Amino acid sequence: MSDLEQRSVNTIRTLSMDAVQAANSGHPGMPMGMADVAYVLWTEFLEHNPGDSKWPDRDRFILSAGHGSMLLYSLLHLTGYPLSLEQLRNFRQWDSLTPGHPEAGLTPGVETTTGPLGQGFANGVGMALAEASLAARFNRNGHRIVDHYTYAIVSDGDLMEGISHEAASLAGHLKLDKLIYLYDANSITIDGSTDLSFTEDVAARFRAYGWYVQEIDGHDRDAVRKAIKAAKANKGKPSMIVCRTKIGFGSPNKEGTAASHGSPLGDDEIRLVKGKFGFDPAKTFQIDDDVLDHFRSAVAAGDKRQKAWTEKLDAYKKEHPDNAAILEAALAGKLPGNWADSLPVFPANEKGMATRQSSGNTIDALEQVIPTFLGGSADLTGSNNTKAKEATILSSDNYAGSYIHYGVREHAMVSMMNGMALHGGVIPFGGTFLVFSDYCRPAIRLAALSHIPVNLVFTHDSIGLGEDGPTHQPVEHLAALRVIPNLFVVRPADANETAMCWKIALERKDGPTALILTRQALPTLDRTVYAPADGTLMGGYVLAEADSGKPDVILMSTGSEVHIALEARKLLAEMGIHARVVSLPCIELFELQDDEYKNKVLPAHIKVRVAIEAASTYGWDRYTGSRENVIGIDGFGASAPYQTIYQKFGLTPANVVNRVKIALEKSGTSY
Amino acid sequence: MSDLEQRSVNTIRTLSMDAVQAANSGHPGMPMGMADVAYVLWTEFLEHNPGDSKWPDRDRFILSAGHGSMLLYSLLHLTGYPLSLEQLRNFRQWDSLTPGHPEAGLTPGVETTTGPLGQGFANGVGMALAEASLAARFNRNGHRIVDHYTYAIVSDGDLMEGISHEAASLAGHLKLDKLIYLYDANSITIDGSTDLSFTEDVAARFRAYGWYVQEIDGHDRDAVRKAIKAAKANKGKPSMIVCRTKIGFGSPNKEGTAASHGSPLGDDEIRLVKGKFGFDPAKTFQIDDDVLDHFRSAVAAGDKRQKAWTEKLDAYKKEHPDNAAILEAALAGKLPGNWADSLPVFPANEKGMATRQSSGNTIDALEQVIPTFLGGSADLTGSNNTKAKEATILSSDNYAGSYIHYGVREHAMVSMMNGMALHGGVIPFGGTFLVFSDYCRPAIRLAALSHIPVNLVFTHDSIGLGEDGPTHQPVEHLAALRVIPNLFVVRPADANETAMCWKIALERKDGPTALILTRQALPTLDRTVYAPADGTLMGGYVLAEADSGKPDVILMSTGSEVHIALEARKLLAEMGIHARVVSLPCIELFELQDDEYKNKVLPAHIKVRVAIEAASTYGWDRYTGSRENVIGIDGFGASAPYQTIYQKFGLTPANVVNRVKIALEKSGTSY
Repeated sequence: MSDLEQRSVNTIRTLSMDAVQAANSGHPGMPMGMADVAYVLWTEFLEHNPGDSKWPDRDRFILSAGHGSMLLYSLLHLTGYPLSLEQLRNFRQWDSLTPGHPEAGLTPGVETTTGPLGQGFANGVGMALAEASLAARFNRNGHRIVDHYTYAIVSDGDLMEGISHEAASLAGHLKLDKLIYLYDANSITIDGSTDLSFTEDVAARFRAYGWYVQEIDGHDRDAVRKAIKAAKANKGKPSMIVCRTKIGFGSPNKEGTAASHGSPLGDDEIRLVKGKFGFDPAKTFQIDDDVLDHFRSAVAAGDKRQKAWTEKLDAYKKEHPDNAAILEAALAGKLPGNWADSLPVFPANEKGMATRQSSGNTIDALEQVIPTFLGGSADLTGSNNTKAKEATILSSDNYAGSYIHYGVREHAMVSMMNGMALHGGVIPFGGTFLVFSDYCRPAIRLAALSHIPVNLVFTHDSIGLGEDGPTHQPVEHLAALRVIPNLFVVRPADANETAMCWKIALERKDGPTALILTRQALPTLDRTVYAPADGTLMGGYVLAEADSGKPDVILMSTGSEVHIALEARKLLAEMGIHARVVSLPCIELFELQDDEYKNKVLPAHIKVRVAIEAASTYGWDRYTGSRENVIGIDGFGASAPYQTIYQKFGLTPANVVNRVKIALEKSGTSY
Repeated sequence: MSDLEQRSVNTIRTLSMDAVQAANSGHPGMPMGMADVAYVLWTEFLEHNPGDSKWPDRDRFILSAGHGSMLLYSLLHLTGYPLSLEQLRNFRQWDSLTPGHPEAGLTPGVETTTGPLGQGFANGVGMALAEASLAARFNRNGHRIVDHYTYAIVSDGDLMEGISHEAASLAGHLKLDKLIYLYDANSITIDGSTDLSFTEDVAARFRAYGWYVQEIDGHDRDAVRKAIKAAKANKGKPSMIVCRTKIGFGSPNKEGTAASHGSPLGDDEIRLVKGKFGFDPAKTFQIDDDVLDHFRSAVAAGDKRQKAWTEKLDAYKKEHPDNAAILEAALAGKLPGNWADSLPVFPANEKGMATRQSSGNTIDALEQVIPTFLGGSADLTGSNNTKAKEATILSSDNYAGSYIHYGVREHAMVSMMNGMALHGGVIPFGGTFLVFSDYCRPAIRLAALSHIPVNLVFTHDSIGLGEDGPTHQPVEHLAALRVIPNLFVVRPADANETAMCWKIALERKDGPTALILTRQALPTLDRTVYAPADGTLMGGYVLAEADSGKPDVILMSTGSEVHIALEARKLLAEMGIHARVVSLPCIELFELQDDEYKNKVLPAHIKVRVAIEAASTYGWDRYTGSRENVIGIDGFGASAPYQTIYQKFGLTPANVVNRVKIALEKSGTSY
C-alpha cells in the first residue's frame, strides 16, 4: 500500500466531505466508507474512457446508492471526465452538473439516474442484459466487439427494496455473469443500525438467486482486488461482493454511525479527519498534484483502450460489413431507414379487433425490420400480445433471443428496460396490465426524468376488461400517468391508430411512451369515411367532422370510447345537432402542436364540448370547460361482463346525447 | 383417506370449475391444485366461526393468489358463511358477492382484497404483527385473550413480486411465528413453466430471511397435516410450507399446464374431470349432502369456539377491567372519547415550523391518549417525524412497542398497514417521502378500494426539499394521489391545520388518508387575524377574506403555497385589488360538502381565480376555469436551495400578482 494510493483514496473522502459541507447538505458517509472499494474498481478494473463517456464498449458503473453522489462526482473529476472542480464546489446548486443525486443525461459519465433506492440495481441488470444480447447477436469468431462488464455499488437500502429482489432473481435466472455488484455492507441505515430492521442473511439470499457471493473487508484493498478478479473469472453467475465497511470511514466521532449518513460532518469534524489523513485542515477541495496525475492516467489509458476497440471494430467491419452497419446504427439509436413502411394498415372492419391485438400485429411487423427490438412481458405474454410470432426467447442458452419472460416483476421489468435503453443498441418494450403500471411507477418516473425512450405496453386499459373486477380495472391510471412530466400516454381508438401510436413511440428519443390498449375488440374505422389515422401523429385530430361542417358541439375522446362518441354523433345528427368528434390519442403530443393547429381541432368559439373516457374525469375539464361535461368514472369499477359495466356507468351514446343536450341548453344554443 | 374426505376435496374442485365455466371467465387451475391443502387447513386447523366472520380472535386466512377466488368462495359457502350457492352461480356477475377477485368488506369471510400479486402476502405479515402487538399489550398471566394464527396461500407470482421480499424479510426479522404460509408451488405461471423466468431456490431464500421452511407434496394430505402441525410447533420463525402441486389437478388434458390457469376448462373437459372424480357429469354445482354436512360442522365448532373465547374474555374483564375496556374499544375501532381534546394548539409564530414537525408534535400528543396507535417509517424516522417521543420500538423482544422500523420497504409498509387495519385493534400510521408514494401506490389503491383507514405520512412534499433534487422532489404526486378514488389527500398550510388534518385522518373509518407535509418551516398563522384552523375540517375554507369583504379575485392554495397566496393578497391590497384566500387542505373532503357551503367559499360569481401549488397544475383548472390561472410546476424539479427553486419556478407572490392582473384584465374587471 503506497502513500500515493492511500492519499488518493483519502482524496475521494475529503472531496466528498468538503462538497457536502460547502452545500451544507448531502451524504458524506457513504463516499467515505466506499472510497477504498471505488478506488480499486475505478483505477484497476473499470475499462472506461473519460475522454468519451459515450464509448459504446465501456464498462458501465452505476452508483445505485445515489445519495452518495459525491463519490461518483469525485471519481469523475479525478479521472478526467469533463467535470470541473468548480462543479464539485457547486454541488447541489442551481444549474450545476452536480445535483443532489446523479442524473443521466446531465453529467458526463453518469450512466443512470439514481437516488430512489433499488433502481440502479435493476438498471444494471438491464445493462448487463443488453450487453449479453448485443454480444450474442453481433460478436463473431475472433471478433468480440461487444465485451464489457456492468458494475454497481449497492447499499443496504437497495437490497431492502423489493425491486432488488425482482431484478436479482431474474439476473440469476439469466446467468448474467458480467454483472458485478459491490455491496456496501456498512450496517447503518438512516434510522440507525441495520439490526433495527434488516437482519436477513444477504449472502444466503443471493446464493438462493443463483449468484456467486463473496464476503470481504471493504477497507482491505487487496481483498477488493482479489474479489473482483474472482468475480470476473467466475462463469455462469452474477456476482455479489459483500464489502463490510464503516460508514464515514476516518471520521473520529461519526465513523460507523448514522450521524455521518445524511448530513455534513461539520467544519470541526472535517478538520479532525483531514488531520488524521495528513491533509491540510485549512484547505478545502485539496488534490495533490501527484494524486491528480495518478487518477488522470485514466485519460490516456481510456483513449488507448477506445482506439484499440476502434481497430477491432474496423476489422469486424471488413469481415462482417452488414452486421457492423446494423450494430453501428443500433448503437447510434437509429432505426432502419424504411422501418415505418412496414407498419401495418388495417382494413375497415365493423367487428374489428382489440388494440392489444393490433399492437401485437404491429409488433409482428416491426420484429421483421428492427433487428434490435427487444420485447417482453411481466408474465402476461398472451394477454399483452407482446411476443412477435417470429420472436425467440432470450434465455441463458440463447442471449440472442428477442423476447424476455420477465416473470411477475413489473417493477424490475421497467427499470431493466431503462437500463437497456441507457446502455444503447437495443430498443426495449415490455408489457403488463395498465392497472399494474402502479407497480412500476417509480421506474416510469425515472424514464421520464432521464429522457429514456422505453416503450410500455399497458393492456386491459379500463373497465372494458370486465369480469376480473375492480382490482384489475384501471380507473385513475390514465390521469396518474398523464401527470408524469415528459411521459407520452397514447391510447389509440382502433387498429390503425394503434400502428400510428407505435410510430410515435419509436420515433421518440427523449422520453418514454406508454401505449394504452384494450382487452375488448373495437371496430376498425373506415378511413374513407373518417379522417386518416395519421392524424394520430399530431396527438389529436378531427376524426369526424360535423355533417354540416359547422359543429354545434365537439365530442372528445380516446381509445375505446371514441366509438361511443361516434355513435352519439350519429344520434345527435338525427336530432339536427351537428357534432364533431375529436380523437385525442396522445394529449401530451397534441399540446406540443402550435396554436393554429390546436385551434383548428378545438376552435375556441365552439364552447360546448363533451368528453368521454372510461376513466377518472380528472383533467378533462381543462378541455370541456366544466366537469359536468365530462363522462367518466370517478369511483372504482366492478366485476361483470364489460357491456354491463359500460351500461351501468353511463358510458353510452345515449348518455353522451343527454349531456350534449343539457350543455347546449345551458349555453343557450337552440337546436 | 376416507371417501367422504376425497369427495369433499373434489367438491371444492368441481364448484370452482363450474363457477368459472358459468361465468365463462376465471381461474380454475389454482383452486383445483390447492384443494387438498385448503381442505386440510380449513377443516382441521383454521379456528374460525362461519357464523361470525368478525369474531376478533379468529385465525385469519388470506388467499394471496386472489385469482383463485373460487377456492375461497367455495370454502366460504361449504363451511357455512352467509354466501349462498346462488352467489357461486353468479360468480363475476354484476352486484354479486363473488367478484373476479376477493374484495374485503364485500363478502363475509374475505379478510382482504387480493389479486394484485404480493399484496395478500404483505397484508398477512401485517395481520400477524397486529396479533403479536395486541397479544403483547393485552394478554396477561392466565389470560391469552389474543391468540390466533395468520395463514395464507401464496403463489409463484406472489413470490416473484418485490413486495414479498420486503414483507418476508421483515417478518423474519420480527420472528412472527404465528404466520404460516402455504406456497402453491405448481411450477406454472401464465406464460408457461416457471423454468421460463423463476428458478431461484425459494426455500433457501426464505431460510435466508429467517423463516422455517418445509417442502411437501401438496396432494399428500397427511403431509399437509404434519407440516402445519410442525409449523405451529416451531417457535421464533414464520413458516413457509412449500407445497408441490399440479395446477388444474384432476383435469385429464389440462392438469399441470398453463391452459388450466386463467380460462374455463370447457364443458367437455369438465365432464371428463367429473367422471374421473365419480361425480355426475351432467350435474353442475353438485354438493352431496354428506359432503355439505361434513363441511358445515364448522358452524357448530365455530360457535363453540367463539363462546369459549367469550368466557375467557369475561374472566379477563373481571381481573383486568381497564385493559379489557381498552381492548374492546380498540377492537371496535373506537377512539377514546376525549382524544381530540389532546390535539395540540400552536401559538402564532412568524418563524413557525415545518408541517412534518407539527405533525410530529401532534403524534406526540396522540401517543399519550390512543393506546393502540402504531407508528412507523420506511427508514426515515427522523425526517418523517413519525416517532413519538415516548414511543418504544416494536421488536421481536418487545412486541408491545408502539413504533415500527419498517426499513427501506415502502411497499410492504403500506400493505402491512392495510393488514393491520383490517385485522383491527391497532391504528397504524407510517411515513416516507412523498416522492416515494410511488413505491407503495398499489397498496394505497387497495386501501382505498377496500375502505381501509390507514394513515400515510408523506413528508418532503415538494421542491421545498431543495438540494436533494428532482429525484426526490414530488411534482406530479399530489395529482396522482388525488385521482385515486376514496383517498383523502390532506396538505395543511400550517401547524394548526396539521393538527386538524390528523383529526380528519383519525375520524375516517372508510378509507385511507395521506398527510402531505413540508420539510421546510412555515409560519404558524395568527388565527386571531385569519380564520380558525377548524375550517380545515370542511376540506377547504376562507382563510382570509378580502379587506373590502367583496373579493375581486379568489386565490386558492394548499400547504406551503398558502403563505405565498397570503403575501400576494397583501400586495394586491396595496394596489386596490381585493383578494380572498381559500385554503384547500383536502379537496376530496371539500367536494363532499353541500353546495351551499361550497358556494360560500367559492362563489360562482367570482370568476377570477388563481390557484398556486408547488406541483402539477393538472386538475386545478377545474376551480380556476382556465389553466392560465394556475401557477404550478409542469416539469421536474431541480437541485438547489429551495428558496432559489421557488424563485426560478415563479412560485412567488409577485407572480401571483401578475397572474391576477392579467386575469382581471381578461375578464374586463377594472381595478
